[in-house]
Amino acid sequence: MTEASSPHPDSDDFMFDPNEDKIREECGVFGIFGMDNAASLTALGLHALQHRGQEACGIASFDGAKFHSERHLGLVGDNFTGADPSERLPGHISIGHNRYSTAGQTVLRNVQPLFSELHMGGFALAHNGHITNAYTIREQLVEKGALFQSTSDTEVVIHLIARAKKGEFIDRFVNAIRQVDGGYAFIGMTKDMLLGARDRFGIRPLLIGRLGDSYILASETCAFDMIGATFIREVEAGEVVVINADGIRSFTAFPNAKSRPCIFEFVYFARPDSIVSGKSVYEVRKRMGHRLAQETPADVDVIIPVPDSGVPAALGFAQETGVPFELGIIRNHYVGRTFIQPTQQIRDMGVRLKHSANRSMIEGKRVLLVDDSIVRGTTSTKIVRMIKAAGAKEVHFRSASPPIKHPDHYGIDMPSKDKLIAANYDLKAMTEMLEVDSLGFLSVEGLYWAMGETERLADEPQFTDHCFTGDYPTPLIDRDRDASGVSKQLSFLVEVA
Amino acid sequence: MTEASSPHPDSDDFMFDPNEDKIREECGVFGIFGMDNAASLTALGLHALQHRGQEACGIASFDGAKFHSERHLGLVGDNFTGADPSERLPGHISIGHNRYSTAGQTVLRNVQPLFSELHMGGFALAHNGHITNAYTIREQLVEKGALFQSTSDTEVVIHLIARAKKGEFIDRFVNAIRQVDGGYAFIGMTKDMLLGARDRFGIRPLLIGRLGDSYILASETCAFDMIGATFIREVEAGEVVVINADGIRSFTAFPNAKSRPCIFEFVYFARPDSIVSGKSVYEVRKRMGHRLAQETPADVDVIIPVPDSGVPAALGFAQETGVPFELGIIRNHYVGRTFIQPTQQIRDMGVRLKHSANRSMIEGKRVLLVDDSIVRGTTSTKIVRMIKAAGAKEVHFRSASPPIKHPDHYGIDMPSKDKLIAANYDLKAMTEMLEVDSLGFLSVEGLYWAMGETERLADEPQFTDHCFTGDYPTPLIDRDRDASGVSKQLSFLVEVA
Amino acid sequence: MTEASSPHPDSDDFMFDPNEDKIREECGVFGIFGMDNAASLTALGLHALQHRGQEACGIASFDGAKFHSERHLGLVGDNFTGADPSERLPGHISIGHNRYSTAGQTVLRNVQPLFSELHMGGFALAHNGHITNAYTIREQLVEKGALFQSTSDTEVVIHLIARAKKGEFIDRFVNAIRQVDGGYAFIGMTKDMLLGARDRFGIRPLLIGRLGDSYILASETCAFDMIGATFIREVEAGEVVVINADGIRSFTAFPNAKSRPCIFEFVYFARPDSIVSGKSVYEVRKRMGHRLAQETPADVDVIIPVPDSGVPAALGFAQETGVPFELGIIRNHYVGRTFIQPTQQIRDMGVRLKHSANRSMIEGKRVLLVDDSIVRGTTSTKIVRMIKAAGAKEVHFRSASPPIKHPDHYGIDMPSKDKLIAANYDLKAMTEMLEVDSLGFLSVEGLYWAMGETERLADEPQFTDHCFTGDYPTPLIDRDRDASGVSKQLSFLVEVA
Amino acid sequence: MTEASSPHPDSDDFMFDPNEDKIREECGVFGIFGMDNAASLTALGLHALQHRGQEACGIASFDGAKFHSERHLGLVGDNFTGADPSERLPGHISIGHNRYSTAGQTVLRNVQPLFSELHMGGFALAHNGHITNAYTIREQLVEKGALFQSTSDTEVVIHLIARAKKGEFIDRFVNAIRQVDGGYAFIGMTKDMLLGARDRFGIRPLLIGRLGDSYILASETCAFDMIGATFIREVEAGEVVVINADGIRSFTAFPNAKSRPCIFEFVYFARPDSIVSGKSVYEVRKRMGHRLAQETPADVDVIIPVPDSGVPAALGFAQETGVPFELGIIRNHYVGRTFIQPTQQIRDMGVRLKHSANRSMIEGKRVLLVDDSIVRGTTSTKIVRMIKAAGAKEVHFRSASPPIKHPDHYGIDMPSKDKLIAANYDLKAMTEMLEVDSLGFLSVEGLYWAMGETERLADEPQFTDHCFTGDYPTPLIDRDRDASGVSKQLSFLVEVA
Repeated sequence: MTEASSPHPDSDDFMFDPNEDKIREECGVFGIFGMDNAASLTALGLHALQHRGQEACGIASFDGAKFHSERHLGLVGDNFTGADPSERLPGHISIGHNRYSTAGQTVLRNVQPLFSELHMGGFALAHNGHITNAYTIREQLVEKGALFQSTSDTEVVIHLIARAKKGEFIDRFVNAIRQVDGGYAFIGMTKDMLLGARDRFGIRPLLIGRLGDSYILASETCAFDMIGATFIREVEAGEVVVINADGIRSFTAFPNAKSRPCIFEFVYFARPDSIVSGKSVYEVRKRMGHRLAQETPADVDVIIPVPDSGVPAALGFAQETGVPFELGIIRNHYVGRTFIQPTQQIRDMGVRLKHSANRSMIEGKRVLLVDDSIVRGTTSTKIVRMIKAAGAKEVHFRSASPPIKHPDHYGIDMPSKDKLIAANYDLKAMTEMLEVDSLGFLSVEGLYWAMGETERLADEPQFTDHCFTGDYPTPLIDRDRDASGVSKQLSFLVEVA
Repeated sequence: MTEASSPHPDSDDFMFDPNEDKIREECGVFGIFGMDNAASLTALGLHALQHRGQEACGIASFDGAKFHSERHLGLVGDNFTGADPSERLPGHISIGHNRYSTAGQTVLRNVQPLFSELHMGGFALAHNGHITNAYTIREQLVEKGALFQSTSDTEVVIHLIARAKKGEFIDRFVNAIRQVDGGYAFIGMTKDMLLGARDRFGIRPLLIGRLGDSYILASETCAFDMIGATFIREVEAGEVVVINADGIRSFTAFPNAKSRPCIFEFVYFARPDSIVSGKSVYEVRKRMGHRLAQETPADVDVIIPVPDSGVPAALGFAQETGVPFELGIIRNHYVGRTFIQPTQQIRDMGVRLKHSANRSMIEGKRVLLVDDSIVRGTTSTKIVRMIKAAGAKEVHFRSASPPIKHPDHYGIDMPSKDKLIAANYDLKAMTEMLEVDSLGFLSVEGLYWAMGETERLADEPQFTDHCFTGDYPTPLIDRDRDASGVSKQLSFLVEVA
Repeated sequence: MTEASSPHPDSDDFMFDPNEDKIREECGVFGIFGMDNAASLTALGLHALQHRGQEACGIASFDGAKFHSERHLGLVGDNFTGADPSERLPGHISIGHNRYSTAGQTVLRNVQPLFSELHMGGFALAHNGHITNAYTIREQLVEKGALFQSTSDTEVVIHLIARAKKGEFIDRFVNAIRQVDGGYAFIGMTKDMLLGARDRFGIRPLLIGRLGDSYILASETCAFDMIGATFIREVEAGEVVVINADGIRSFTAFPNAKSRPCIFEFVYFARPDSIVSGKSVYEVRKRMGHRLAQETPADVDVIIPVPDSGVPAALGFAQETGVPFELGIIRNHYVGRTFIQPTQQIRDMGVRLKHSANRSMIEGKRVLLVDDSIVRGTTSTKIVRMIKAAGAKEVHFRSASPPIKHPDHYGIDMPSKDKLIAANYDLKAMTEMLEVDSLGFLSVEGLYWAMGETERLADEPQFTDHCFTGDYPTPLIDRDRDASGVSKQLSFLVEVA
Repeated sequence: MTEASSPHPDSDDFMFDPNEDKIREECGVFGIFGMDNAASLTALGLHALQHRGQEACGIASFDGAKFHSERHLGLVGDNFTGADPSERLPGHISIGHNRYSTAGQTVLRNVQPLFSELHMGGFALAHNGHITNAYTIREQLVEKGALFQSTSDTEVVIHLIARAKKGEFIDRFVNAIRQVDGGYAFIGMTKDMLLGARDRFGIRPLLIGRLGDSYILASETCAFDMIGATFIREVEAGEVVVINADGIRSFTAFPNAKSRPCIFEFVYFARPDSIVSGKSVYEVRKRMGHRLAQETPADVDVIIPVPDSGVPAALGFAQETGVPFELGIIRNHYVGRTFIQPTQQIRDMGVRLKHSANRSMIEGKRVLLVDDSIVRGTTSTKIVRMIKAAGAKEVHFRSASPPIKHPDHYGIDMPSKDKLIAANYDLKAMTEMLEVDSLGFLSVEGLYWAMGETERLADEPQFTDHCFTGDYPTPLIDRDRDASGVSKQLSFLVEVA
């Protein structure tokens, strides 16, 4: 049976984190051209984008003669410490990358930006998203004698550029982009330009900002706010922008591109203070709460957010209903990653390291919990049990996003379909599995309403929303090959250090 | 001139933390008798008490033959990682300590528990609070040939025990306690008992809990919750409790003791989910917000808490007034302690690493900020400026506690009197210095109301509240000697490592 | 003027090491096929070869399904500590590499073995030596779209294999080898074989050993001794050996190959207990001392070796002459790499951290110092001054190898020609520069005599000896292009981490 | 049975070190008064004395206002790296200490110099040697309420000073010294003086040197050589010297003192380039070899020293007999402390990490091995087997010191009597146990001859030589109490960190 069929809390309770059963963005990117100490600003920009990837980070720069690169496992703030980064990474062009990764393969050779020495000179590339035919292309390239230094899908693009027979660099770059499918935002740099590119649906975000005379590219506006830069516009779906000493130029990689940004940027990924597609993320999330209250009302005494991501929707829900919003779950901010391993004795005590119930707000009350989503449901059950153990009379649960029924293939890390609770169970079964008195999800229509749309246009949906609807914007070549039995082992190497 | 006269933001803005201008608790303590793997439970208890001290931590245990001790700089969760701590610290008796310290002297020799080999055997001691005549006693002891291994006031008690001429250990301990003044909670252990003691006003907290057949002592109930233990009662003011294989015995160190716990436990120190003196800390803080709204109303569009400690009072304020509560300040949770040093270029950009304004909730609005207190006022001004820069039409500021006018001498770390803004300026001057449209403080009466008291009993105040009132419960011997010109240099040694 | 013209001791005296002005081997290699826990034996073999390279080390293994790799900066014994390496690097095939490097480019991506995913599967390669046309080939490959992950000349061979149009793997390997010039010993591994190859003059060493049913390849016999393996034979000049489950096969990469091993293996590199080309290194070095005594006698009281490499020749000299051999220079074995930086005050004291004169053996005596060679002469002068300061009546200096007049291009790290003292000065000038009473070098004929040869065959010299004679066995393509003004910048990247 | 009865090589062979079965000095001390940056010179002096203790090191200084202290586990060169130590440890007075320790108790609180705040001010103390009544005095002090911060015998002296009823500091110090028995050299410092003291037999060494106008105290002359200081004289047996701004003063702590320095300084401890009691250590060791050759001749082909400490005696033996001296055992200098743990597979291979036999000098020969001593005999057997495995026709073994039959009690770390091979077996039995063709020891008379004495004066021996003779110069109070059943457990505490 699948794990979803048995979401019972277990020994993981010890370290269980209210945020642990979430889907994850895989990356954040940042680039700047034409500013002294560019790498320092890149470090700050990456810091603002840290929520998009905490596994690794890297910065490259060019100083007029040499490229410089620094790549690390871990956080920006733990690696770019002490002296100004631009002392080690001098120059006026710089790009950077935050990476989130699912498993073992976060070895240093996969950390971006990737750097290559092409015939035309040095080239660094950073990528947010996923190329859905990367493995297929890679296989063809290896057959032709290409040597891959990483298992990252990003490297495929570099090989395509390196092997292009002719043309200016920018032509080779556009040509390479056209050969890859999927959802992606690329930031690249050569010795005299900064490049940005977005897939033909604009699934992954990429924005243009300005600071003085310099242009900046970044995944979210909060990176501009961090350094006092001004948001100019989004890179268009299917657009390639080139920034050099002469300013900014735009190329159309996909003439028939159509904007259809990923709706999960609003539901989860973006920082609440970012503006995405012209909308305040915080406000959209609050509107999700308002609409949720209308769609799935409940007669309760208190609204409690699952911290931290459920807070805006819970506030919206509370404001819509007039029921008090209270912090009923307290997080412990001091948990290190490698805290003591619990013995059986400690597990049996039901110890929870990362949070606790605020009993005074729960005991004897009808509680409504608001979370941003339900993925596998395992954590939700743990939270419900903790709230009940603190004396709640009733526990109701609301998801501020619709049921997640389909996996992503564009750079979001989430469990396989057989682990997605909403893909396998109906509302009644989920209500029982979560052990709640009632359960409710926001509708897809409600989500579009929260986004400010009057309705979802079925023929040309305004957003990439396949996780809720199954409507994938692009073909999924590697997946389909894989499903037909073709192995997808990307590497024979386990790199220990 | 004093610093308080010039609270202008400066280069510190780069790393400025909404929580940085707070007063600090100096310690948390935990002890357990009669449970296998006692040190593991102590580690968990200290983790729950981590908010009371983040500079250092230590655990001692006794295994029937040997004492074991581990002391570290840094957090519990960063030091007691990996294998179960009771593998290194075996035994059925254990005590532990979290330490916050003001400056340089957090060298390892000062980290508690302090351990000594007395004539009667090993003795470990941990302390939360401050002994107000420690230096005076120390000086007398050194003159008699005592060698001090630390600069901690705690060691004075151990020397007093060691030099007691006669009596059972517990008599020596009670006798030593009686010689020291101040606000303190001690937890000690010998090879066959766990001890707890609280000063004669019960200024610093100490509670008794139970887990199975074992007794536990801890600074807050949240440490009991962490390990599933039950809160039994508080150690009384002036009481010494002794826990051994026969159970718990109580000794009266100060017959005329009178309970007068420190009110700052409610205002700041305790975790919101702790129960102090029978009251939910979270509820008291919300009541402070309610009363604050009544005492200092304002015509505003949005209530924004200064995160994180201002949240409960802001919720109370919002619920009292019906004005929306919104998260207008977003914290970045990923800031390492040693992030890059800003260059002048970056400072000039007004970069702020630790938080940002959520512009969509601020722009064009009349904003009311709620914080739990105002100490020096420097950080408040920085926050106000950030909110204004995000487009607020008006900014009003409310402190959920009364003006802080007097320094503490019982274990709370706070600036000297000349730096306390409310000790040096009136409301009008402070309003100008904070650059706000209005400023308001909770009254002392309002604070007592929030605590559930009808009034402050001037002759016998229910709480230790000298920071607001100047009414110190005990004499301050070292301070007075110091004021009269006697040097208080505790050590000639600067210990580098 | 060149540095050689002014070999005056200076502030470096503080950390000056009797061994510091030596030429350096660049690498040691080791491989084993068909033994469980192969990586553990590789770690031991590399440890025995540690003297051939101390900058970095790496081990790869194959476990039947996956390749495993671990690469580090630093020593084998500092990196392969604790648990058995084969727990992390499981499998029955393994190769390893010790690296010495001249400068900045010892970044991890250059540490060997290099691993690549070829169309035929995984391939790991390790290299001792230098390819003299690597840059030229690399340039051609980059033009064709090859992406290089390192700046190591070794990677050229992997690309040549990857791009071979057809043939079995071994054919592609032999074909690749044939395209590269220089002095080299390669050890490679695929999922089912271990490979070894030696250049057509056998300049760099490579030996075959056996342990039970397993074959081993290594740079020196001391690696066999370490693990109790038996030395079988040398890989022949121009031979490629393939070891797999069926045993060992031999391929002839260069039909007209002629053995002419590097004479520096005897003079410097090999461990004294190794057998090279059938000769005991220790005995050869002693014979160099005997002959040196005959060629350049001196009337002295005591023979003092420059430790440690001058000891065998000094013993030979002493035995030949009957003059006492004494340890007149004592080394301090505890010097860390990053000992305190000396202030001017300390420099002025003439402090020497790494060694000291044993005054009782020197004072009032006529001393003859024996070193294995003189490279720049700077260190020799420092030693002479130290011996004089200890009261020597006369100081005579003997080099157990001939004057070094020409740089190497086959993997030996040495100063450029303008820094080689013997390339720029005659014996009289050097005698003055070293401030000695007499100076003597072994003759080239004497060196051949020590090797057991009756004479040097001018037409077909038995050894690669260009450093003494200028007679390079192969063309030097990259060098000649470089000399004609073609840039040789291998990388635009400065990789900080 | 005792271990000595079964000296068979075992799994330890893997890491076995020719030097491992040696006795060990416990400490080296250094102090300087009146030189700027005194701590830097102390660091250099300790570096020169590193051979006397490698477990820990510490330096204290006084800058006119404050004392500074730094104590570390590990080597001087690994801990006092980078910037000049006197930046962290400023001042013109400084003392330092190197420590060797036998086991577990090398926790930081035991690392010297120990610092205390006495009534008269700060006091730092460092000690080489052992106080034979330390435990007895400690017990009395603890009974009186003294708290000990370390388990070091050194702290007893500080408590005795602290508790002295009256007198100048120097009187208290002399008075304290008089209460302790044993072999010791103390270096202490207060805010205005540097002190040195030597026990009444001068068992442990202490020397006075001079650098410019500054006086220096150190354990060996090599520390003076390191910094260019001049050796003035030894501190006399039973003398206390006080160095301050007025120069040097001498006090007689023990009027009836008689010089009888420890003969092991010559046999083992001192660096070969040190001058002890006016004699070159290197020369004395060579004379031991000459005499050994006369006393125990052998008909052999080659003399091989057990490296490194057997070298001078082997040279003497070879010069006396004319038999060639050869390096037959090669050490690997790159062994880290924590190299891989050998599996059974590797142990079965007879792998030896730290050294190897130089087969070409051994095979087919009659070998005579010379070591400085034989302690347990276990290592000697391993060496003999290794030499035999390399093909020796005969193996003869010589010890350059007499049989060690009695343990030390004055600061030398050696096995208990039941493990000393010569204390339990006669020559014939030892010859069999070492598996050699002949075995010989230097006689006690021969040792005195090598020291330049005509004979050992039985009534008033010139040296402390109880390990050979059983003639202890002082009573052994703690040992005798211990032997009579009084527990000597110094601490109930196991300090993990």
